[in-house]
Amino acid sequence: MPDTRKSIAVILSGCGNQDGAEIHESTLTLLAIHKNGADYSCYAPNIKQHHTLNHITGKEMDEERNVLIESARIARGSITDLAEFSAADHDALILPGGLGAAKNLSDYAFAGTACTINPDVQKAVTDMIAAGKPIGALCIAPVILARLLEDVLITVGQDPAAIAAVESMGARHRTTLQTEVVVDKEHRIVTTPCYMLNARVDQIAAGAERLVKEVLDLLTP
Amino acid sequence: MPDTRKSIAVILSGCGNQDGAEIHESTLTLLAIHKNGADYSCYAPNIKQHHTLNHITGKEMDEERNVLIESARIARGSITDLAEFSAADHDALILPGGLGAAKNLSDYAFAGTACTINPDVQKAVTDMIAAGKPIGALCIAPVILARLLEDVLITVGQDPAAIAAVESMGARHRTTLQTEVVVDKEHRIVTTPCYMLNARVDQIAAGAERLVKEVLDLLTP
Repeated sequence: MPDTRKSIAVILSGCGNQDGAEIHESTLTLLAIHKNGADYSCYAPNIKQHHTLNHITGKEMDEERNVLIESARIARGSITDLAEFSAADHDALILPGGLGAAKNLSDYAFAGTACTINPDVQKAVTDMIAAGKPIGALCIAPVILARLLEDVLITVGQDPAAIAAVESMGARHRTTLQTEVVVDKEHRIVTTPCYMLNARVDQIAAGAERLVKEVLDLLTP
Repeated sequence: MPDTRKSIAVILSGCGNQDGAEIHESTLTLLAIHKNGADYSCYAPNIKQHHTLNHITGKEMDEERNVLIESARIARGSITDLAEFSAADHDALILPGGLGAAKNLSDYAFAGTACTINPDVQKAVTDMIAAGKPIGALCIAPVILARLLEDVLITVGQDPAAIAAVESMGARHRTTLQTEVVVDKEHRIVTTPCYMLNARVDQIAAGAERLVKEVLDLLTP
């Protein structure tokens, strides 16, 4: 019997919410993919992290870390350099949040609406869109979609500055509460706020699961 | 109305399965605690990691990391030095796995059955036992209980070497499949194998949830 499970690519941005991928959002995205009968493949750009923060003090540490190598901690070593990503290999793409999305996958945390996107991330997103394949993004990661795509409907939760920023980049925004998702059926984009709002871990799990379900629904004609 | 939610202490051992706390097991333990209406408090010893491994190659990196600071990545910064742990503050204790349990919380990975346990970990475990409070342990973490306690019934999955080791340290062992838990009602110990077996993320979630439910059940007279 052929393997008919859907293949979802997940782009990680390090390991830790302050300078990399948010660990709960990333893990619970992987969980939601498995719970819904699909498989995941983790990717990350092979680049230096913007910086390394002590997650207790929030202060910068005198350390250089690599986004791909740190992301491998979440992926238990099973991860591929994003430069090798091919849209043909996957049915959908998901970007968990954490400030790594705004510091490593893009420079949104520093440049705001003038942000640029890592070239490998840009290629993965635009190739999936060109192939008509859906993309999910959690937390702050939707800023990447607002920057790269025209007129997409997304959510980044309730933060006025983040909402103004994504609208200024040309996105339409819908405010959301914990666990809610926003689906842009035309552009095949699904977003959920996660830790852009105060949230418990079970709310992150519920948001990630709804997002994955909506992404998989977009694959059903 | 007073807060009647149970308080569960979780001892982390770093951030990443090869040299610290297993990220999925840790996150899914926190999820299971929230899903079951309890609260968690994360702790870790404030010590140097035994070593830092590149999780892609498995090779040692020329870096020194601190167990408490790295564990804070999983805890989103909300974590306490294990030296400050008081059994009076919590209803139960859970130890997620990952090789950090065998390299940082103990030296089981190197010393085997002659292993010693980090003094802060030993105090937390023995104080909880003395107070009659239950302890849960995932994956390889039950070796710590085998070393510290007499005649406990635990599981470390199916690995013959690990089973022989815990039996040699005086524990009784029950083999388990993915998602199964073993409850020692007399000693108030709950264990589950998680990534000691090949497992999907949804199986880790199911094992962690069963373990948390059994731990909470032990709190109901």
